[in-house]
Amino acid sequence: MALGENSYDILLERGLLERAGKLLDLDRRVLIVTDTGVPQRYAALLAGQCAAPVTARVEQGEGAKSFAVLEGLLKTMLAENFSRSDCVVALGGGVVGDLAGFAAACYMRGVDFYNIPTTALAQIDSSIGGKVAVNLGGVKNVAGAFYQPRRVLVDPALLSTLPPRQLANGMAEAIKAGVVGDEPLLALFEQEDAQGRLEEILLRSLRFKQRIVEQDEKESGPRKLLNFGHTIGHGIESVYGLGGLLHGECVALGMLPMCTSPALRARLEAVLRQNGLPTRAAFDPAAVFAGLCHDKKAADGQVTIVTADRAGAARLETVPLERLRTLLEREAKEGIGA
Amino acid sequence: MALGENSYDILLERGLLERAGKLLDLDRRVLIVTDTGVPQRYAALLAGQCAAPVTARVEQGEGAKSFAVLEGLLKTMLAENFSRSDCVVALGGGVVGDLAGFAAACYMRGVDFYNIPTTALAQIDSSIGGKVAVNLGGVKNVAGAFYQPRRVLVDPALLSTLPPRQLANGMAEAIKAGVVGDEPLLALFEQEDAQGRLEEILLRSLRFKQRIVEQDEKESGPRKLLNFGHTIGHGIESVYGLGGLLHGECVALGMLPMCTSPALRARLEAVLRQNGLPTRAAFDPAAVFAGLCHDKKAADGQVTIVTADRAGAARLETVPLERLRTLLEREAKEGIGA
Ligand SMILES: NC(=O)c1ccc[n+]([C@@H]2O[C@H](COP(=O)([O-])OP(=O)(O)OC[C@H]3O[C@@H](n4cnc5c(N)ncnc54)[C@H](O)[C@@H]3O)[C@@H](O)[C@H]2O)c1
Ligand SMILES: NC(=O)c1ccc[n+]([C@@H]2O[C@H](COP(=O)([O-])OP(=O)(O)OC[C@H]3O[C@@H](n4cnc5c(N)ncnc54)[C@H](O)[C@@H]3O)[C@@H](O)[C@H]2O)c1
Repeated sequence: MALGENSYDILLERGLLERAGKLLDLDRRVLIVTDTGVPQRYAALLAGQCAAPVTARVEQGEGAKSFAVLEGLLKTMLAENFSRSDCVVALGGGVVGDLAGFAAACYMRGVDFYNIPTTALAQIDSSIGGKVAVNLGGVKNVAGAFYQPRRVLVDPALLSTLPPRQLANGMAEAIKAGVVGDEPLLALFEQEDAQGRLEEILLRSLRFKQRIVEQDEKESGPRKLLNFGHTIGHGIESVYGLGGLLHGECVALGMLPMCTSPALRARLEAVLRQNGLPTRAAFDPAAVFAGLCHDKKAADGQVTIVTADRAGAARLETVPLERLRTLLEREAKEGIGA
Repeated sequence: MALGENSYDILLERGLLERAGKLLDLDRRVLIVTDTGVPQRYAALLAGQCAAPVTARVEQGEGAKSFAVLEGLLKTMLAENFSRSDCVVALGGGVVGDLAGFAAACYMRGVDFYNIPTTALAQIDSSIGGKVAVNLGGVKNVAGAFYQPRRVLVDPALLSTLPPRQLANGMAEAIKAGVVGDEPLLALFEQEDAQGRLEEILLRSLRFKQRIVEQDEKESGPRKLLNFGHTIGHGIESVYGLGGLLHGECVALGMLPMCTSPALRARLEAVLRQNGLPTRAAFDPAAVFAGLCHDKKAADGQVTIVTADRAGAARLETVPLERLRTLLEREAKEGIGA
């Protein structure tokens, strides 16, 4: 990832976790942040390669992305005498990455941060790009930073323990990358042997995101393309997320209405279904509209949405919020809600 | 302040607060952060120039630099529907600036921040340079960021309401700037009419700090020179700060032992005394040593200190922590503690 003085390497290979001690500078105090859902042996394997490891195991789930848990991590670092030259490693999914990354960004105004993502979503998307955050008052990512890791180790072997639904959840972001800017990536999902081509999918997804972030680290322009499916997706998530829909599942639902050609929509729908992702869900358009109005992208009655009429060619459009209300009403009757 | 895309203007003139609406973009939601010790009419004057002001008045004193107060500010912004294109203005001393700046840095990963410093310390030093933070577990600035303001308005007229001891407190940092890197600034303090030359002192101090920050935004090298007097100063502050010594007073005491020539030490002592700053204070060397060991600059038995043997020419030295224990013991008997 070429970002001037914030540049870093993203390594992708099976077995990287076993060699972390050689690939990262762990010869200092290391806070390993993981959660109760990540197999414990991963953290043990990593700790064994650190000079002075301290492992913080937070409760699994979105609840860990809170001010209280963040403060706890910082207090642990303080109690263990961490200095500005020590470091933090995230070993988990997007929750752990966002939380640990923000702790690293804050502690004494920033210590080194490494990310070893263990979910498909994190390996495909969230571990690179430097967005870190915690939630507040029920709203996602209210407090955070742009803080790049020093290095990212993507070890596909770690996904072997991941439940299938979590795997599919991550694939939604890879499919998104295909629709937004990499037609051959979308086409990969249409191959008969797509299941066996995980590493190729990871690589293409990471390359795609890398290109976008390199152009626009702080999300002032092109990076907003990555929000394809996220405006309506977040709206759905804010209403139905607690009821059991995962982030990627909401994004899957959110992408379909943003396809402006029936051909692309049909193509996307087939790929989503093939990957065990939802393409239909009963929803209340008024509630989802209210949910997305709370979203940070909605400022003063206008919202920037991402639409695509063919794979690989998404674009940004600023439209009145009201347009989304109409769209949701139609989708509830004859689209994703039908 | 030339820092690439983070560059900004620092304006210095009497009456700037009255013209803030013309100098800053306040035609949006504006969170004005101030404290109970800052005259209320300043905030009212500012709010009158904003399209949609929200004023947060925190309790005066260091206690406001806390996670709890930070979280409160973020919740206020959320409740008032602040988006990424709204902004935060600090209107107060270093406490308000550090707190409000960190809130601006975090909120949705960063909104525009303006600083209108109202204490001498903040006008001379803390309002420029982008260090923002809150305290944690009794340790200063544990959680923070480097986050530059978009513009800083230094209005010396605001100092007219400041108690004399607070004025002197700020002068300690200007005197520090003189010793570290601007001999003519130190000489200004030796003029008979020094009292009447406040604006010149502010200007030279800001220019000095600007030069250093431009060279080293993130404090990896030369910026550490600004810590002159701060290593021992922080140690004293951690033990005696609550007992009534102000930050600048601790820095005054901390600078003297770091003068490596008797001539500079004598010169500095005279200037400090002239400005109502302490040059002697009974202290317990063991307690102060323990206090400074907790300081973030002390990593693995080594500490980087700043020494000077003539005005305008301070330098960094890395020494064993133990050296400071010896120094403190001697100072307690025959130096600043005598
Ligand atoms: N920073 C970004 O750019 C970005 C991008 C997208 C999403 N996100 C964030 O990511 C979060 C979602 O991330 P996620 O989908 O990875 O969820 P997650 O981190 O909650 O992980 C999902 C579940 O899988 C478990 N798990 C993790 N690794 C495992 C493994 N190898 N084997 C078995 N179980 C394992 C976890 O314990 C958890 O219960 C959200 O908070 C979202 O906001 C961030
Ligand atoms: N960010 C930096 O680079 C930096 C540098 C140095 C110090 N600091 C921080 O600054 C803080 C100290 O700042 P400070 O010395 O300005 O203290 P402060 O902010 O607490 O202000 C001192 C007192 O003066 C009152 N006050 C402020 N403006 C006034 C006015 N115009 N008239 C009357 N009263 C007024 C305040 O209410 C307060 O009670 C510390 O937390 C320190 O860590 C930060």
